[in-house]
Amino acid sequence: MPFRYHRTVHFSDTDAAGVVFFARYLSIAHEGYEEALAASGVPLAQFFADTGVVIPIAKSEASYLRPLATGEKIIVELTPQTIDESRFAIEATIWKTEPAEKRAAHIRTEHVCIESATRRKIPIPPAIQKWIESAA
Amino acid sequence: MPFRYHRTVHFSDTDAAGVVFFARYLSIAHEGYEEALAASGVPLAQFFADTGVVIPIAKSEASYLRPLATGEKIIVELTPQTIDESRFAIEATIWKTEPAEKRAAHIRTEHVCIESATRRKIPIPPAIQKWIESAA
Amino acid sequence: MPFRYHRTVHFSDTDAAGVVFFARYLSIAHEGYEEALAASGVPLAQFFADTGVVIPIAKSEASYLRPLATGEKIIVELTPQTIDESRFAIEATIWKTEPAEKRAAHIRTEHVCIESATRRKIPIPPAIQKWIESAA
Amino acid sequence: MPFRYHRTVHFSDTDAAGVVFFARYLSIAHEGYEEALAASGVPLAQFFADTGVVIPIAKSEASYLRPLATGEKIIVELTPQTIDESRFAIEATIWKTEPAEKRAAHIRTEHVCIESATRRKIPIPPAIQKWIESAA
Repeated sequence: MPFRYHRTVHFSDTDAAGVVFFARYLSIAHEGYEEALAASGVPLAQFFADTGVVIPIAKSEASYLRPLATGEKIIVELTPQTIDESRFAIEATIWKTEPAEKRAAHIRTEHVCIESATRRKIPIPPAIQKWIESAA
Repeated sequence: MPFRYHRTVHFSDTDAAGVVFFARYLSIAHEGYEEALAASGVPLAQFFADTGVVIPIAKSEASYLRPLATGEKIIVELTPQTIDESRFAIEATIWKTEPAEKRAAHIRTEHVCIESATRRKIPIPPAIQKWIESAA
Repeated sequence: MPFRYHRTVHFSDTDAAGVVFFARYLSIAHEGYEEALAASGVPLAQFFADTGVVIPIAKSEASYLRPLATGEKIIVELTPQTIDESRFAIEATIWKTEPAEKRAAHIRTEHVCIESATRRKIPIPPAIQKWIESAA
Repeated sequence: MPFRYHRTVHFSDTDAAGVVFFARYLSIAHEGYEEALAASGVPLAQFFADTGVVIPIAKSEASYLRPLATGEKIIVELTPQTIDESRFAIEATIWKTEPAEKRAAHIRTEHVCIESATRRKIPIPPAIQKWIESAA
């Protein structure tokens, strides 16, 4: 089952157009990714510090489907997927919840596993792979 | 009883020093303020739109007591207080929760009630005053 | 000739991984878009207020090629392009400048012209179209 | 002479109230601090990495005097001042520039010099002290 992260839109997410700033949808999707991993026992910042592995985002694609206003309750639904030995993708849908559940955005990010010291690609670490398999 | 807003620190809250960026503590306190009002039936953005009242922040003071790292669970505890007919203050304490509850920051903001159309000060609206009295 | 926007990376652009947070590349590209339009005589916020036109971003794609650290001097190079009657795209390249000019990111955004009051698509306004033609 | 940092207000600085979000004034003042130090030959991030010194902000005070809208040209004027052996303050004034120069905010931050490894206070490093003296 996809992980669902619940969140309220705050003033600091919005811009003078009155709704969430486009780049902020990506931050919100990233929060969902952090929460999903933490919920599966992999606190990401701790994981980076402990293993010397970093997982930069290499690509992102986003479709902004509906504006989101301050105070709105949203849900980020995430599905990870292995791309190859070193890379995985996350498909995130941001849902409006009121008055009915409607897609507000769809975001796809590609993540590459790298050894911090050498900057070389490495296989997806087992703890991350386990999360991908359980959540896919 | 003071309102308590629960929050996790995210990567987007931090900077290259590895911990939450100082200005971000104020954003987090503001999230708590929005949540406290919403919980008492006053969704702030809706309130501004419906009443033509705006409540800009005139002053802030902050003491940054402890660094906060990505993944940390924090609590924002808020106490509002009337200053005069048009102004109120909010005292916000941000608490670390692990391994023990410790103060991470203390933030005080002053808020002025203004009629949007004329930019003139007006008395604190009843809905906000009610929240202040119930939460003080 | 493409517009070139010069910028320094600040602490508030970075996260605990020590480099610019991925979503922040999109904000920086948007700054370049605002600067490019302002330089051609179309201050965007004023334009929205005066015309009742809004131009939300419908899609974005980004490739993050190199990390950027606090203090780095970067250049955002922008090329707009008409997609159809109501839509245009912007190709933005973010360049590192030191020690040599190297691509740090490539970002493509799609923008849709909308009448604010009705939320209906409208033709690209002449002032924007003129910028697209002069800068393409 | 105080250092003056020139900056344009961007959409990402604003919130749904249509003007710069209060916490963002502090980020903008911090940009000015980074630029002032860089201009005097002390790129702050590099300095932290090279010396093992960090300089967290212990306190901030801000008065928000005038709203700032997207597209506005602003100037941040900074004056540093020694507090004691380990601490200095920065007084930053953010100026609107159009139609006339008017104060938009005043921000005071207190900075403590700390050895990163031990988290102990240390005297203000000579390079920083030199900047304080030249800019005061």
